[in-house]
Amino acid sequence: ANPFTLIAGPCQIQSLDHCLMIAERLAKATADAGVGFIFKSSYDKANRTSLDAKRGVGRDEGLAILQGVRDRLGCPVLTDVHLPSDCVPVAEAVDVLQIPAFLCRQTDLLLAAGATGAAINVKKGQFLAPWDMVNVAAKIASTGNERILLCERGASFGYNTLVADMRSLPIMARTGYPVVMDATHSVQQPGGQGTTSGGQREFAPVMARAGAAIGVGAIFIETHEDPDNAPSDGPNMIHLERMPALIASLAAFDRLAKADPLAV
Amino acid sequence: ANPFTLIAGPCQIQSLDHCLMIAERLAKATADAGVGFIFKSSYDKANRTSLDAKRGVGRDEGLAILQGVRDRLGCPVLTDVHLPSDCVPVAEAVDVLQIPAFLCRQTDLLLAAGATGAAINVKKGQFLAPWDMVNVAAKIASTGNERILLCERGASFGYNTLVADMRSLPIMARTGYPVVMDATHSVQQPGGQGTTSGGQREFAPVMARAGAAIGVGAIFIETHEDPDNAPSDGPNMIHLERMPALIASLAAFDRLAKADPLAV
Amino acid sequence: ANPFTLIAGPCQIQSLDHCLMIAERLAKATADAGVGFIFKSSYDKANRTSLDAKRGVGRDEGLAILQGVRDRLGCPVLTDVHLPSDCVPVAEAVDVLQIPAFLCRQTDLLLAAGATGAAINVKKGQFLAPWDMVNVAAKIASTGNERILLCERGASFGYNTLVADMRSLPIMARTGYPVVMDATHSVQQPGGQGTTSGGQREFAPVMARAGAAIGVGAIFIETHEDPDNAPSDGPNMIHLERMPALIASLAAFDRLAKADPLAV
Amino acid sequence: ANPFTLIAGPCQIQSLDHCLMIAERLAKATADAGVGFIFKSSYDKANRTSLDAKRGVGRDEGLAILQGVRDRLGCPVLTDVHLPSDCVPVAEAVDVLQIPAFLCRQTDLLLAAGATGAAINVKKGQFLAPWDMVNVAAKIASTGNERILLCERGASFGYNTLVADMRSLPIMARTGYPVVMDATHSVQQPGGQGTTSGGQREFAPVMARAGAAIGVGAIFIETHEDPDNAPSDGPNMIHLERMPALIASLAAFDRLAKADPLAV
Repeated sequence: ANPFTLIAGPCQIQSLDHCLMIAERLAKATADAGVGFIFKSSYDKANRTSLDAKRGVGRDEGLAILQGVRDRLGCPVLTDVHLPSDCVPVAEAVDVLQIPAFLCRQTDLLLAAGATGAAINVKKGQFLAPWDMVNVAAKIASTGNERILLCERGASFGYNTLVADMRSLPIMARTGYPVVMDATHSVQQPGGQGTTSGGQREFAPVMARAGAAIGVGAIFIETHEDPDNAPSDGPNMIHLERMPALIASLAAFDRLAKADPLAV
Repeated sequence: ANPFTLIAGPCQIQSLDHCLMIAERLAKATADAGVGFIFKSSYDKANRTSLDAKRGVGRDEGLAILQGVRDRLGCPVLTDVHLPSDCVPVAEAVDVLQIPAFLCRQTDLLLAAGATGAAINVKKGQFLAPWDMVNVAAKIASTGNERILLCERGASFGYNTLVADMRSLPIMARTGYPVVMDATHSVQQPGGQGTTSGGQREFAPVMARAGAAIGVGAIFIETHEDPDNAPSDGPNMIHLERMPALIASLAAFDRLAKADPLAV
Repeated sequence: ANPFTLIAGPCQIQSLDHCLMIAERLAKATADAGVGFIFKSSYDKANRTSLDAKRGVGRDEGLAILQGVRDRLGCPVLTDVHLPSDCVPVAEAVDVLQIPAFLCRQTDLLLAAGATGAAINVKKGQFLAPWDMVNVAAKIASTGNERILLCERGASFGYNTLVADMRSLPIMARTGYPVVMDATHSVQQPGGQGTTSGGQREFAPVMARAGAAIGVGAIFIETHEDPDNAPSDGPNMIHLERMPALIASLAAFDRLAKADPLAV
Repeated sequence: ANPFTLIAGPCQIQSLDHCLMIAERLAKATADAGVGFIFKSSYDKANRTSLDAKRGVGRDEGLAILQGVRDRLGCPVLTDVHLPSDCVPVAEAVDVLQIPAFLCRQTDLLLAAGATGAAINVKKGQFLAPWDMVNVAAKIASTGNERILLCERGASFGYNTLVADMRSLPIMARTGYPVVMDATHSVQQPGGQGTTSGGQREFAPVMARAGAAIGVGAIFIETHEDPDNAPSDGPNMIHLERMPALIASLAAFDRLAKADPLAV
């Protein structure tokens, strides 16, 4: 099995310079560690807890910035789509379309995304059992597009809390599609701060490491150079300066896992 | 306080005749019981568990049928919307737009629905705490539209199971908006049959009665004359022939509750 | 069906005078409302969150006080047991033995309690499905004692939170044994204050009313004249002065429910 | 940090020969892998789902067998206690007393266990938040005994299902006591087969590996040479013949984790 791919970047696109700064750091760290890299950032946070929260730069500007990152650094880029009509224009600009967790059962969005032929990373809904992702993947695959990734990002566990069930990784892997461990959203506390979501940033490396040890295909991490002042998901993003050491550490667990695959 | 309104109908629109048959039975039973009535049915099941499941008659045909019911019976009608672009045409045909639970945080959909001026019934997401619905309502109210209903339809409770937390009714009522108890979706077992959702139809009257006793503004019930052969949500729909007695029973609990409001 | 029985009293025995004061108020209010009454209080809180919390007056003094209440007021009394060796002496002093939720699977305790011939109220474990209570009841019934009550007091729902699933009432009722709705423990927040449990007293009447509307055999409520200064469970106990009106209200819902039983 | 200790053995003591056969295999495999070993087995399953299930050989015979294993193999042995009165006699025969999860809040049991001076492995209740284990540990430590281990064995997640939250490992580690990952009970499905518990044996190695990667002090695994015919916990026990390879694999992840400790 191949080394894992790191899917990482700031939650929200702020500017081309900001994205490039982060992407360069991550590209170097992943290259040093011998793992893959896909830059991730969002142009529109379409489901913020509160209307007053910042939504982002918008699609046109966001796609231009993501293409700028891709052109300058040569790395693939990923962003999320929210409506079927987003899929074609976004797929022209990025390599991987991401389906947000809340939207993972929206048939038209899955079909529109699949029809672009782009790779599709589907976040498992907080309300969904891991075995039910087989039906989600089948909707995409019905378009003839089998470039599917299935992502664990935590399941609802009481109110304002998620829990990442490690069984979901091997369960989703039975589909044959690569599985992604989203380390930073798994420690989100949705709505936990009244008008914004909280998070437990300190446990994101725990989730990432557990995923690496289980041998996932990709690890998803949101990061920022100043999480406490980031426009979204600050409480669960990992500080950028911690990323190089974390990536190197995850690569070591990944190598061990890939040399000793779990038979489940 | 006024008697509750029953929001009821078959999960999925099958035909005008079928809708009329059900709506007539429900209109008579609610009139006999002295409670309100809004006919509910869906033209598009946009998030079925599996791609192979029936999605519905489509928007144009569905809206024509709903208008037919409204014209013939004089009752308000409700249907759900899935995309911002649905909202204007749907609001021209129906009285209440419903936001599906999975979509209750999609800002653009909430804003587009609110902007129509129609009443909006928002289902609380299976992943959402009841106190977080205040932010959802604020998104709609930002359009100047305060005709908002907030609906309990169960929260994720482990995998393939929901639980209806009765505390959510008074918590959501603190917003000042009417609260709806969805008795049939609260007993759904999402994805519980592999490629379809299961349900525990036998407990829907329990949920409806508990909601009536707590004094909700509306009770939501899906019903069908042959649930086992209905195109969707059969396992949790209540048999149509049980509805008149159930409505009369709920009206008695509602009268008692409205005469003796809970101070919470 | 008979009117419900109120099982109520202060969480913890403080003194004979204190118990009598509360029991008299409750005996009068239940008699006025035409419902049954069993006085409940505990002599030992054997599983407090923290070692520093008050455990109670102890078994000998506690049983003497409970017998004092029974002798003076003529009402049956209930208390909980924690060890098999408690059962015989406690059954000599009280009418109903209660098995705490954490202990509902401890076979020796269930057998020892059953063997006394006393009525046994078993709290459903926060970790147990309602259908699994059939096995719990069978352990008691194996002693030849069928005087069993099965009690809903909330199920674990994430951390530090419980949820009362109303389906559990009809599910447990299928055993044929009377079902009890514990209104005050269902709104407990275990461990939610660091070294003590929190609670949401304001929602206890909601739970009680939902249970009454569903037609339970008994409703369990802890109450105190000064909950904020009670030695245990203050955050979820109902203020004693609210009890007469609540009891009268519950009796009205109970009469309606018993006249119109749910067929589930 | 030291290599992890494997706490392992058959769920239930069957005979001295059977225990020796399993203990020898595990002692050799752990020695080969350079990790510690404590033999675990139970003489009494005091909280079986159903009364008809086998409870075990009883305390006297069980302790004699455990001492036999200790004498013959020189390894420490662990067993669980259920009543305060068990603690002294059990502590004379074994090295580690285990507090079952359901009993982790029973103050008298914790105090009696602590007072023996033996090491105490406390399973975190399925109903308990990981941060609440600090109060549990404090009860034991109040006896002057700080030889405490805190064990994750899954939290209630809906009905008949547990989920192991990996955050609980670093959270409990903040107490300073060694943390144990119970890989086989975390995949138990309590009551999931009607009168017995089910389990997902295939995922136990996933849990064990995640725990090893996070750097726990001990890993708990129940094992049997014929799990499908074992007297208890068959569905979640790992087949004995898989244990040597699993132990070697876990040791590799443990070495990596101990060389690269998570800073949380």
